[in-house]
Amino acid sequence: MTGVRIAGVGLTHFGKHPERTGRDLFAEASDGAFADAEVPREDVEALHYGNFMGELAEHQGHQGPLMAEAAGVLAPATRYESACASSGVAIRQAVKDVRNGEADVLLVGGAERMNNLGTAKTTEALAIAADDLYEVRAGMTFPGAYALMAQAYFEGYGGSREDLAHIAVKNHENAVPNEHAQFRKGIEVEQALDAPMIAEPLGLFDACPITDGAAALVLVSDEYAEENDLSAPVSVTGTGQGGDRMALQGREYLARTPAAEEAAEEAYAEAGIDASDVDVAEVHDCFTIAEVLALEALDFYAPGEAIGAARRGETTRDGDRPVNLSGGLKAKGHPVGATGASQMVEMTRILRGDHPNSDAVPDANVGVAHNAGGTVASATVHVLEVGQ
Amino acid sequence: MTGVRIAGVGLTHFGKHPERTGRDLFAEASDGAFADAEVPREDVEALHYGNFMGELAEHQGHQGPLMAEAAGVLAPATRYESACASSGVAIRQAVKDVRNGEADVLLVGGAERMNNLGTAKTTEALAIAADDLYEVRAGMTFPGAYALMAQAYFEGYGGSREDLAHIAVKNHENAVPNEHAQFRKGIEVEQALDAPMIAEPLGLFDACPITDGAAALVLVSDEYAEENDLSAPVSVTGTGQGGDRMALQGREYLARTPAAEEAAEEAYAEAGIDASDVDVAEVHDCFTIAEVLALEALDFYAPGEAIGAARRGETTRDGDRPVNLSGGLKAKGHPVGATGASQMVEMTRILRGDHPNSDAVPDANVGVAHNAGGTVASATVHVLEVGQ
Repeated sequence: MTGVRIAGVGLTHFGKHPERTGRDLFAEASDGAFADAEVPREDVEALHYGNFMGELAEHQGHQGPLMAEAAGVLAPATRYESACASSGVAIRQAVKDVRNGEADVLLVGGAERMNNLGTAKTTEALAIAADDLYEVRAGMTFPGAYALMAQAYFEGYGGSREDLAHIAVKNHENAVPNEHAQFRKGIEVEQALDAPMIAEPLGLFDACPITDGAAALVLVSDEYAEENDLSAPVSVTGTGQGGDRMALQGREYLARTPAAEEAAEEAYAEAGIDASDVDVAEVHDCFTIAEVLALEALDFYAPGEAIGAARRGETTRDGDRPVNLSGGLKAKGHPVGATGASQMVEMTRILRGDHPNSDAVPDANVGVAHNAGGTVASATVHVLEVGQ
Repeated sequence: MTGVRIAGVGLTHFGKHPERTGRDLFAEASDGAFADAEVPREDVEALHYGNFMGELAEHQGHQGPLMAEAAGVLAPATRYESACASSGVAIRQAVKDVRNGEADVLLVGGAERMNNLGTAKTTEALAIAADDLYEVRAGMTFPGAYALMAQAYFEGYGGSREDLAHIAVKNHENAVPNEHAQFRKGIEVEQALDAPMIAEPLGLFDACPITDGAAALVLVSDEYAEENDLSAPVSVTGTGQGGDRMALQGREYLARTPAAEEAAEEAYAEAGIDASDVDVAEVHDCFTIAEVLALEALDFYAPGEAIGAARRGETTRDGDRPVNLSGGLKAKGHPVGATGASQMVEMTRILRGDHPNSDAVPDANVGVAHNAGGTVASATVHVLEVGQ
């Protein structure tokens, strides 16, 4: 086994770009990654790419070769789809291929075009990440599903809408200096609490927006990095994946996410760390309650104890372990198939010290990225470390 | 690195099953694979699953966890989509994970539900495997695309509709004893030539049908097979993948498939064989001309020389190297996301000697499976060997 380095990262602006195709977005993100990596395109041996709903948004499947061409890479290309964890699983397979010597240089990433559909059709399209027969046809949408999870949490452990509002406030604040973020303005707790309810107990500010965007990374082996004298200080030292029953009704308990627990356990074991070693995290806050569930799955908090983390200031930029310094899905945005890769891009920059919020964690060496699909029927966790 | 064994295989009937869901089909195929393997479900560490058009046919994405549940496996699950090579790429990643010690037991496979859409909507859905902006919106469908490839072949190398008809006749004949096949009746050359033209020079009998079906395999490491005293005589000794530009207009030449050439070269190199060592092959004959292109990509024939192979009897069941003893996509059927896995299932049974057409190749030790996506913008090739 060899080490896996992140040689370069690239991102588009996350926001409303209904006029831009998926390929256009991915071309920009991969341009950025190649420029950052200083790795020639012809060295790339394969593309591992995540996309969720291209069939519905662009009448476009088979995006592997299409995106390889957009990135200027004529190499074998594979598209992964695991709902909102699509690029998380793509990166996981790429990490395994590099560490096992299957490849020295891989392009990874994801893209999603969503705003061209309009809100109603996008909500309908997003529902394909749930069980069509047993959830969607009964009227379930994702805001409703996460509202059920929030209700179960409140009933099981306590907590309030105000606790959730502090998560939204924190992530909006973090997004302000992030030039890639969709929402770059702070909000107040009162504003979040007064916003229209979308599914009790979740209001408008508890939900992430609909976003177009793309993210890309160049992964290389230690040997390639050394031979080519690359500056690639961040390594992926652990990867984990978990799975759960698809539909909420099949789960034992709605206020835990065992798929993410399993992914975290595996990733930590590979990296030889435990939760207490983690300095900073990007987690999948598609809804504010999802951030709470993520922090507990990552074992930063015991079940029932993460709900007050943002309110207590523990996960804010001035806290002991900042979470979602990028702004998270909540404020940076959530172009579904790009999100897992985007978290890795943000974490790489945070750890390298060239992120606008790096100053919040000047001594950080260990970061994690937590990416979830659907109501966490799929999850990946990656550990990133400096100077491994 | 360890060896990768095929411990068990399962298939549904391939045909028109518009009333059956994808999950129902995959449950049956995986039931068969587990029964054949005598491997307990709880030993499975992950599912690698291929599906192409679930979003359009069943309003269902995120099929990884859904299919794991259908298969009775609560393990991390990943869905791969690479058009008609969806399960080919899924199996490739699984093979790499087993040989590199990432897992000892994996479930792999694919499923596709198509007939519930009706022919017109299915043709429209299939077009998402082509470039929506530059091919589909100009009116291109897959019969038209392969007709262009056939025209280029005829102009470059010669050949006739009668040569192609012999391929259809051969594959229909092979399907007769195959209980999983969609069409189990022989046809005559005249019948194929007299059939309605669908896109000059391809007639109705040059095209594969629209098919519902699923296929599954249990892959295990050598160590697991030995420790558990499994009868698993067939190993995957090579895997290759290639990529090409998505749209036909981007290609240098339409009558070759460099993505498949690249995949074959890689798979042969890994297995330490060359084309002359291959005893029997399952190739991606979505159209008769595609079988010709496949035989040349696999280096069984020089460019321009495979066109007469079936007519000369070289690839028939009595020939030197039988091709598509299953009946191929042409007569066995082509449930898109299941096809790559189905080829591996058929080849495993052919090599084990328990396929209805095994008697055509009683001494076969080396088989290949060639799976292609779109107009071969994606391709995988796997080498299967007995007693490695």
